[in-house]
Amino acid sequence: MNLLKAATALKEHWSPAVVGRVNDQYVKVAKLKGEFTWHQHDDEDEMFLVLAGELTIEYADHAVVLGPGDFHVVPRATQHNPHCTNECLVALIETVTTQHTGEVVHDLTRSVEIQLNNQPEIDKT
Amino acid sequence: MNLLKAATALKEHWSPAVVGRVNDQYVKVAKLKGEFTWHQHDDEDEMFLVLAGELTIEYADHAVVLGPGDFHVVPRATQHNPHCTNECLVALIETVTTQHTGEVVHDLTRSVEIQLNNQPEIDKT
Repeated sequence: MNLLKAATALKEHWSPAVVGRVNDQYVKVAKLKGEFTWHQHDDEDEMFLVLAGELTIEYADHAVVLGPGDFHVVPRATQHNPHCTNECLVALIETVTTQHTGEVVHDLTRSVEIQLNNQPEIDKT
Repeated sequence: MNLLKAATALKEHWSPAVVGRVNDQYVKVAKLKGEFTWHQHDDEDEMFLVLAGELTIEYADHAVVLGPGDFHVVPRATQHNPHCTNECLVALIETVTTQHTGEVVHDLTRSVEIQLNNQPEIDKT
């Protein structure tokens, strides 16, 4: 499956879709725009790979700016807040048990079940 | 770190470099050309993401052809043989304990220690 095509086909911002699994990690794609919410994943790292556009990941004391092809791993138990002024497409690698917004419940929170069912409408061959 | 730049900076074919870690998985980049060797990883899936060029992963009874942005997960315990006529750049997601050529020892076999030390000479900021 093509990651960029899968991410492009998503309709909603900040609503990842599970497109694969490697060992105990899900491969997800997401379409982002604007600001997410401050959160952390206590026991799990989270990998962002930018497919198109530019993504900023804010930490308490610094920020990381990522462009196409850049990847960045948010360490477990670290408060972070992804945001992008313009639309940005990303792939994510996360442990299968990772909750979308950690312990925070937010309007943008999507359960892993929703993410599994949120399949982009593309040719998956 | 930029995956494409990191893969481009590698000098040797079929000799992955570890460029990151997310949970119990290493993120690796590799430069491929020609044929690897038939092997399998008994207990671990292996994810290929093509960054540039075209990669064919042969299985016993079929083959998968991948272009830029395409990812494919080789299921555990499945004999496979990656090959590409022209040079191809890939990222890999593999469990930290995964052996390069599974139980097969081959001229091309590189230990995980070698892969960890095989750092591309690029700006890593």
